[in-house]
Amino acid sequence: MAADPRFFGQSCPQPLAAIAARVGAALPEGADGDMIFTGTAPLDGAAAQQIAYMESRRYLAALRATGAGAVLCAPEHAAAAPPGCVALAVADPHLAFARVAKLFFPPPAPRPGIHTTAIVADSAEIGSGCEIGPYAVIGEGARIGPDSLLGAHVVVGPGCVFGRGCHLLAHSSASHTIAGDGVVLHPGARVGQDGFGFALAPDGGFETIPQLGRVLLGDRVEVGANSCIDRGGQQDTVIGTGTRIDNLVQIAHNVTMGRGCVIVAQVGIAGSTTLGDYVTLAGQAGLAGHLSIGNKARVGAQAGVIGNVPAGQDVFGTPALPVRESLRAFARFRQLGQPISKKA
Amino acid sequence: MAADPRFFGQSCPQPLAAIAARVGAALPEGADGDMIFTGTAPLDGAAAQQIAYMESRRYLAALRATGAGAVLCAPEHAAAAPPGCVALAVADPHLAFARVAKLFFPPPAPRPGIHTTAIVADSAEIGSGCEIGPYAVIGEGARIGPDSLLGAHVVVGPGCVFGRGCHLLAHSSASHTIAGDGVVLHPGARVGQDGFGFALAPDGGFETIPQLGRVLLGDRVEVGANSCIDRGGQQDTVIGTGTRIDNLVQIAHNVTMGRGCVIVAQVGIAGSTTLGDYVTLAGQAGLAGHLSIGNKARVGAQAGVIGNVPAGQDVFGTPALPVRESLRAFARFRQLGQPISKKA
Amino acid sequence: MAADPRFFGQSCPQPLAAIAARVGAALPEGADGDMIFTGTAPLDGAAAQQIAYMESRRYLAALRATGAGAVLCAPEHAAAAPPGCVALAVADPHLAFARVAKLFFPPPAPRPGIHTTAIVADSAEIGSGCEIGPYAVIGEGARIGPDSLLGAHVVVGPGCVFGRGCHLLAHSSASHTIAGDGVVLHPGARVGQDGFGFALAPDGGFETIPQLGRVLLGDRVEVGANSCIDRGGQQDTVIGTGTRIDNLVQIAHNVTMGRGCVIVAQVGIAGSTTLGDYVTLAGQAGLAGHLSIGNKARVGAQAGVIGNVPAGQDVFGTPALPVRESLRAFARFRQLGQPISKKA
Repeated sequence: MAADPRFFGQSCPQPLAAIAARVGAALPEGADGDMIFTGTAPLDGAAAQQIAYMESRRYLAALRATGAGAVLCAPEHAAAAPPGCVALAVADPHLAFARVAKLFFPPPAPRPGIHTTAIVADSAEIGSGCEIGPYAVIGEGARIGPDSLLGAHVVVGPGCVFGRGCHLLAHSSASHTIAGDGVVLHPGARVGQDGFGFALAPDGGFETIPQLGRVLLGDRVEVGANSCIDRGGQQDTVIGTGTRIDNLVQIAHNVTMGRGCVIVAQVGIAGSTTLGDYVTLAGQAGLAGHLSIGNKARVGAQAGVIGNVPAGQDVFGTPALPVRESLRAFARFRQLGQPISKKA
Repeated sequence: MAADPRFFGQSCPQPLAAIAARVGAALPEGADGDMIFTGTAPLDGAAAQQIAYMESRRYLAALRATGAGAVLCAPEHAAAAPPGCVALAVADPHLAFARVAKLFFPPPAPRPGIHTTAIVADSAEIGSGCEIGPYAVIGEGARIGPDSLLGAHVVVGPGCVFGRGCHLLAHSSASHTIAGDGVVLHPGARVGQDGFGFALAPDGGFETIPQLGRVLLGDRVEVGANSCIDRGGQQDTVIGTGTRIDNLVQIAHNVTMGRGCVIVAQVGIAGSTTLGDYVTLAGQAGLAGHLSIGNKARVGAQAGVIGNVPAGQDVFGTPALPVRESLRAFARFRQLGQPISKKA
Repeated sequence: MAADPRFFGQSCPQPLAAIAARVGAALPEGADGDMIFTGTAPLDGAAAQQIAYMESRRYLAALRATGAGAVLCAPEHAAAAPPGCVALAVADPHLAFARVAKLFFPPPAPRPGIHTTAIVADSAEIGSGCEIGPYAVIGEGARIGPDSLLGAHVVVGPGCVFGRGCHLLAHSSASHTIAGDGVVLHPGARVGQDGFGFALAPDGGFETIPQLGRVLLGDRVEVGANSCIDRGGQQDTVIGTGTRIDNLVQIAHNVTMGRGCVIVAQVGIAGSTTLGDYVTLAGQAGLAGHLSIGNKARVGAQAGVIGNVPAGQDVFGTPALPVRESLRAFARFRQLGQPISKKA
């Protein structure tokens, strides 16, 4: 399937030599470096002017049958490409594919200008080359770095700082936020609002605790659609460089996480929990508050974590257990569900 | 309780004969077809000019005591209606009630016109009879079918297509989306944004994979408040005709589902999973990626599905098991929680 | 860490005597009531002009080492404050801290005025002292009480009523809603939209059931960022006085809850379930429909509740069991995961 030009415009055609250069692959003997490609496609639907990629050996049969004019694959699979399909051997076909796809369809660049309906406070600073969309509202003292894009209806509160090349998409909002370069807020993301902090008063009412911290977003952090990151109470909520957060995620006040974390959709992290670097939290996992999750730990989907997780540990289940222990217990649990006659 | 006229206006009064005709019920002997009704009410709070319905035999006592002037009920319960209450016997009282309630309170029709503050791109096409609300933003080349309603602050990206009679409510947004007729986006719904796709680079950073697919919404699809449907990566994300999606649901890139599915609140479906027709996912269920869920399968609330589910199968639990096996295992698990003395 | 003045302005300095008076603490002998404090800080980062608090005895070492000029603590810990740190003894340091922090940083008051871009229907009533932000849209017949604040892009539908001193923050929306005084809608909150109600028709399609109820919010209810509260079908959805709802929570049609409930992030409550007063639902818990949860019941994180819960009961797990039973069963489940050799 070619990308729909209504949404993606025409692709930027690329000669094979440029593609090979981008991914550091050698052109196989006899391949024509001037051959023009127009885009990417899956192995099983690709045409002669398209390039596909082979993610794993599961797709060996698809590779053998592909109509693609070229393929990105591991060196050991290059020989399986059919005649007429140039195999570009790369160490990581998935990564190479990401890079090649961007050659054809570079991410949309801002079209510099401030829409006449945008409301930018007098004391706000907008860097050069920014696109500020219709009905955007930017508060006093806010600073938006150069080459950034703010979509329609984006609200940036007073004092917020965003670095160079940030993309704040439709309906996203930020307050009390200091962000680095290349940060992306997807539609409807909420960053910097009040944390859920209050004390119980003797009359049964709740006394709100002023939330006096900020949200700090490192370079290239992405926050998914309709996700929420509350600002800190007495300290900051901190998201490390390059961390990616999917849709509908909840990150409570005072959470800190390191660089390169992957937080999948609908995860919830309670207040003051700390994640190291390169932590992965799979979908719908929940972490209690005041925990410490070590570097490169991985938490399974829907897991409920109520204790610290050491670096490199994989955990699963509710309450979460180390993955081997959890799987063994579950296997026996499942045996509980067998009819008695089968257990004998 | 009568509907609050501040929100619903006055009802459209209906003669009993029109009500009976709408639901295909015979007027009982002696009933006055000209009797005027003003609205619906629950059995236990209804007045003589209101019509109630009896959902199941659990409400037999409420039927016997009702003050309603008429009731929609199964044929076998008609005799239990008290004197002065006309029983309209129907095969499905719940469905009949939906239809009757709409007679009294038809869904709000668009009031044709484009608000002066709406920003409609020159190349966008707005069908006849549409209502476009304040501060709506409609991008280049977008097409909105006739008799559609866009609420305040709705953002429709360039190239999007919506069919006839669609309702996009306050703060909803769509990009890269092709939708049929009668589609409803509830407030804050997000459709068509980037999927969560990236590759890990050797330096520990992530390389975004361009998401070059679309979202295709069949006729009469409804997307709940603050729910998210990401567009596809190399293929489309597809939601079949008539499927209903509740609030705060996450649907990842490349998911496809058939017609008439019911996706309850806070469900999450990971990338590239396929649902057949008439699948039901109960609240907070999570489905891993690349799975296949057969027609009419049902997934229990909070279930975690990590394998394919055959057509017609009901599953429950995390990891999800067929419902009988799951209930048996849970019953024994619960026995584990009894004090030892009770087990003897 | 002092509060960032870009976001919080300068604090209102307070003499020690005023602080002590606010929390009902006696000034210790020799303490200087005229000593000026500039703000709050955690025990381990506080300076001489800041006041800290000691949440529990876990922080005794931090108290002994603090650089704070004063501390709020339980009477039995007052003697542990280091020289130069005035100990204010209070029954509830957490509550006292909330009150003191508000002295330094009172919540932002509305700056009266209606932004020129706000669209206020002719028949809407805006109380005195209200701040109505840019691009807010207020429908026909709506009433906003005095001293309320509506942020940028807020949408209030026709007929809605909000009391005195309400804060509706950026991008929040309400329809079919009657709210008391001091209600807060955090960014992106959705209140009053259609419930998920429909009947299955013989042709496999769904017939929408008109949702003819409202949402009633008691005084001081708070609704978190991107949370959703659907209006009722034949009755109202009701949230009692003082109840606090965190982010990304789903509350379905016809739910009613009492006063002082605490609903943590990502909880889901299905239709027609009733909560008493002071119920706590921890993060990601799910409640099935048509249940009754008694006063002061507590539901654990990620629990799945499928039956009624009596007043005062704590439940845990999926399906939820009384907490003692659940913990015992889980302990034995965990034993299932031990290698066989360890079980002997």
